Amino acid sequence: MSETDKTLARLRDQIDDVDGQLIKLLKRRNELTGQVGEVKSQTGMPIYVPSRESEMIAVRRHQAESIGLSADLAEDVIRRIIRDSYRSQHSNYRCINPNIEKVVIIGGGGALGKLFVQLFEQSEYKVCVLEKDDWQRSDEIFANAGLVIVAVPIKLTSSVIQGLNSLPPDCVLSDITSVKNEPLEAMLAVHKGPVVGLHPMFGPDSPGMIKQVVVVCHGRFEAQYAWLIDQMRTWGAVIHESSSKEHDSAMAFIQVMRHFSTFVYGQHLKEEDPNLESLLMFSSPIYRLELAMVGRLFAQEPSLYADIIFNNAESLALLKRFHLRFGQALQLVESEDKAEFVLQFNQTKQWFGGYAKQCLMDSKQLLLKADDSQLLRKTKISSDGQ
Amino acid sequence: MSETDKTLARLRDQIDDVDGQLIKLLKRRNELTGQVGEVKSQTGMPIYVPSRESEMIAVRRHQAESIGLSADLAEDVIRRIIRDSYRSQHSNYRCINPNIEKVVIIGGGGALGKLFVQLFEQSEYKVCVLEKDDWQRSDEIFANAGLVIVAVPIKLTSSVIQGLNSLPPDCVLSDITSVKNEPLEAMLAVHKGPVVGLHPMFGPDSPGMIKQVVVVCHGRFEAQYAWLIDQMRTWGAVIHESSSKEHDSAMAFIQVMRHFSTFVYGQHLKEEDPNLESLLMFSSPIYRLELAMVGRLFAQEPSLYADIIFNNAESLALLKRFHLRFGQALQLVESEDKAEFVLQFNQTKQWFGGYAKQCLMDSKQLLLKADDSQLLRKTKISSDGQ
Repeated sequence: MSETDKTLARLRDQIDDVDGQLIKLLKRRNELTGQVGEVKSQTGMPIYVPSRESEMIAVRRHQAESIGLSADLAEDVIRRIIRDSYRSQHSNYRCINPNIEKVVIIGGGGALGKLFVQLFEQSEYKVCVLEKDDWQRSDEIFANAGLVIVAVPIKLTSSVIQGLNSLPPDCVLSDITSVKNEPLEAMLAVHKGPVVGLHPMFGPDSPGMIKQVVVVCHGRFEAQYAWLIDQMRTWGAVIHESSSKEHDSAMAFIQVMRHFSTFVYGQHLKEEDPNLESLLMFSSPIYRLELAMVGRLFAQEPSLYADIIFNNAESLALLKRFHLRFGQALQLVESEDKAEFVLQFNQTKQWFGGYAKQCLMDSKQLLLKADDSQLLRKTKISSDGQ
Repeated sequence: MSETDKTLARLRDQIDDVDGQLIKLLKRRNELTGQVGEVKSQTGMPIYVPSRESEMIAVRRHQAESIGLSADLAEDVIRRIIRDSYRSQHSNYRCINPNIEKVVIIGGGGALGKLFVQLFEQSEYKVCVLEKDDWQRSDEIFANAGLVIVAVPIKLTSSVIQGLNSLPPDCVLSDITSVKNEPLEAMLAVHKGPVVGLHPMFGPDSPGMIKQVVVVCHGRFEAQYAWLIDQMRTWGAVIHESSSKEHDSAMAFIQVMRHFSTFVYGQHLKEEDPNLESLLMFSSPIYRLELAMVGRLFAQEPSLYADIIFNNAESLALLKRFHLRFGQALQLVESEDKAEFVLQFNQTKQWFGGYAKQCLMDSKQLLLKADDSQLLRKTKISSDGQ
């Protein structure tokens, strides 16, 4: 073994020793935050306290700078640890309304439904799940229910709601569908008690409700479901109130446009049939991210996307206008009018304002993180996606 | 102060203490990897050794599991630290070819050019930058050059190359433009010595060349520029060899299609003029990411995108086919043919194969990371994007 090899081996041993200590410290911290979680759940304090989080980060950035360590490194590491600590603190939440005898979740076996079941149970509510085979004993299930949440697929929501005409009068009726206007009207029509529409703005793969937005569309007797909103806040949710119409037209824009364009882009790729591995090999991280945004659509349920696109009243006109604009831009390429392209580009840049720059910065940061974790990697794709 | 408050304060003090120790450990580790970097640069060993990295991670995952800590947490933290350590090890690289008297980088003041200047200097080459005002003394600059790299904007590349007709005969001529066929032919025509086309597949915001792909399109006298390829490997690059034609047609696909669609999407948003803040408020993380991919385009130079779109011979026909397919898919919505939509969706899903699932998993992971760092955040957008 050469002198250099010996030196390197010694340094590596020392690094490994530091890494070992690091993992032990993480475990120690995990135990401490677990204890914090227990204290908080006993007293109903929220798990997520933004000011405490930003203070912790500021202190560690400062410490890092003062000893000549990258402050960004310190921040990223602390944030990653904090994310984990929210999860380990998750075990229990305070029950905001112990008077509720029973929470019924229709479709509680579905992905997002399950998350609600878990959160209510962790808050010591009695939870009943009503799945499609349970309707014959629905009277029994709904008896004494203080809250009924409809968590079924979008295309079934209205018909399920129409069946809810014999809930206890004071029972809160709610749904978590990603459209809000039609379900809210259906709920108000069928039930005379308190009604509220909810849209949790996150997927079922989210580890919980910490820092996630939940849109609340008020229906009737707000005071009687205020506890539900508070309960979601103890779960860490950020509440955003909106009318159901405003909500739905934003959704038409966000969901329909993006999904449809992505669908067409996938079709286009299939028809052109380039070699996907070779495309990836030639893609810088940002293109791999763009391609991943297309690919991910096709790993999901087509009927979900068909429902979103075909069930929105504003879809067709909006998509036609996009198609028209695409054709107009194409004429710029055909007539080789670069100057007009640049002009229009700058007008759109102005429309985006400061947001464009923010997107650029955010996406750069995000790509660095993807790089750390070897996400969006350019290596061989196995046939089963593993 | 209540008993609970005291308990919490005590626990928080202990957490802060753990965090303080953690930062000190990171600093200690940073010093050790700095020493490793010095040893490596003296002996010309590569900074990035994949097997060492994956071993370190495996060991820490195992340790974490054995003490009941999340192995993913351990891995993410270690990866983030490793990324930083590559940067702190960066200071010096071995010089693969000390016989090179001078490296000239034309456009070395530009973003990507600067990175090359830095890497060559860190490897103890003498580097000269030739900027647009320096052409009158170009004879002096090119005298004794062992390597000339053209790093000017895409639209200037060919004309700059045409001026390089009096380089030393053994000088290696290279370019780093994102198209390869035309520049390579121009270089072969103007210079009788060794020629090689390079395309570094990363942006100027990349912290270096570690783990990044560089496409190599061979020109002439490969043996005489083998040292350059080796040099890039010591910088951490992953080399991918390709013909310039194969490269360019992949680029047409990746760059032109994505940029043009994104351009039209931005135009469409501007014309429809929804409230951007409200759109963001209603967007779940995945939609915010999609929107950020559109927004980021408009934070950049329009002329760069105009060049990419208008200068590619395959653009127009490809874009026209996309436009046609968009129109066809639109007819599915118009005729409310959900069944056909689902059928076509499934065909495209098959075309993507395992990649779709991989994209979905990667993007979920990536969104968790975005969440940690409060990237793609839904808060107020300041007017200057800060």
